[in-house]
Amino acid sequence: MPSYALLLEYDGTPFVGWQRQDTGPSVQQVLEEAAAHLNGGETPVVTAAGRTDAGVHAEGQVAQVALSATLTPERVREALNFHTRPHPVAVLGAAVMPEDWSARFSATGRAYRFRILNRRARPALDLGRVWHVQRRLDAAAMHAAAQGLLGQHDFSAYRAAACQAKSPLRTLDRLDVTRLGDEVVITAEARSFLHHQVRNLVGTLVEVGIGKRPVSWPRSVLDEQDRTRAGQTAPPEGLVLTGVRYADAIEWA
Amino acid sequence: MPSYALLLEYDGTPFVGWQRQDTGPSVQQVLEEAAAHLNGGETPVVTAAGRTDAGVHAEGQVAQVALSATLTPERVREALNFHTRPHPVAVLGAAVMPEDWSARFSATGRAYRFRILNRRARPALDLGRVWHVQRRLDAAAMHAAAQGLLGQHDFSAYRAAACQAKSPLRTLDRLDVTRLGDEVVITAEARSFLHHQVRNLVGTLVEVGIGKRPVSWPRSVLDEQDRTRAGQTAPPEGLVLTGVRYADAIEWA
Repeated sequence: MPSYALLLEYDGTPFVGWQRQDTGPSVQQVLEEAAAHLNGGETPVVTAAGRTDAGVHAEGQVAQVALSATLTPERVREALNFHTRPHPVAVLGAAVMPEDWSARFSATGRAYRFRILNRRARPALDLGRVWHVQRRLDAAAMHAAAQGLLGQHDFSAYRAAACQAKSPLRTLDRLDVTRLGDEVVITAEARSFLHHQVRNLVGTLVEVGIGKRPVSWPRSVLDEQDRTRAGQTAPPEGLVLTGVRYADAIEWA
Repeated sequence: MPSYALLLEYDGTPFVGWQRQDTGPSVQQVLEEAAAHLNGGETPVVTAAGRTDAGVHAEGQVAQVALSATLTPERVREALNFHTRPHPVAVLGAAVMPEDWSARFSATGRAYRFRILNRRARPALDLGRVWHVQRRLDAAAMHAAAQGLLGQHDFSAYRAAACQAKSPLRTLDRLDVTRLGDEVVITAEARSFLHHQVRNLVGTLVEVGIGKRPVSWPRSVLDEQDRTRAGQTAPPEGLVLTGVRYADAIEWA
């Protein structure tokens, strides 16, 4: 059974998230049903590097599927793009992978971007792509606060109650906050993230941005390891999984 | 009757265009019905600097409305944003204008951006925001061809049959073509444009980009002044009205 890696873009808006659920359509289901056409009608399992939540988008998700037939990666990409229609899921690339490669466990880095639209008027063009915050944000203060969270820590304070990870220890490699006109953009990179970690970090940094909390607050929340002290969970629609890194870079066809 | 300028963002997807028509909802209708709430229930006329086509978006459209009451620009902006809900139309700013100011006739420049997604896979995140062209485009050749169209010319070859402008003479100040990763972005600036001019220019440049026509071709089409010789009209969803310029810059509240 040849194993294929898939590079994916999707709009999270119409989905219950990456993972199959009884409550509605998922990205996983769309891909698995498309892949069945390349697998003699049998529905294969498609696993992803990051199981994005409902409403969260991806520009560079990486997934994995084993198929009964040996096909060129170009053929896998084109056929999946045909069969995923009309869902907003696009296969940007495909590659044949060694048997011991895992989209999830071989990943050495994940990168996310969170976009905040920071203006009075609600979004028209970017509806469903941004978190709308009307109060003026001090992006420099948010960035300064974010730098206090870098490195390896127990991120229990920024973890969802439902998080299934065994350990709350994570190493945050990058957490940058930049203003681009009316937008405040947060970039986060780590080997892996806890459930809701990026959205909880963003919600907490926004409290610094509006001046409700001091720059030192996100770090003191981290140190207390108490989820009830952090800010709100930022809404999913501002979040995009921008890329997944592997020790051996994948050659996408 | 105080006259107000409005700075507008909208998603053109659900609309028949800027202008009111019997065939469906228009941006003008949404704004006029919202403005009636600020005008004692009487529906005022809202006019725009550029009457965008169905599916064309705006980040910086400028419109004009006269209201019976004297209101602060902040109040006009906030009230219109309330009453235009849930349509994807946002009022980014408002300003009180002198009686002789016209959103359309006082404008000294219009700027548009056209986005082409140039890759095999169809758009997922940018569906309705880009023209999807699968064949690889040579953006440098398109840019070189575009430079031959700058300046004042008879643009009859790039004008829609339905164009109502008295003269086909226009002065094209800027027509830049740039590749940004998988995107080819065209930026166009002029005092004013003919109907479909930007979309016809883009459709013609794409024929150069795919290598079907030489770099010199868009200019020879221009010189022959024959619409039937130019390329196809590019689809509306890639086009955004990014801004309108006035001799006296407007101070938006």
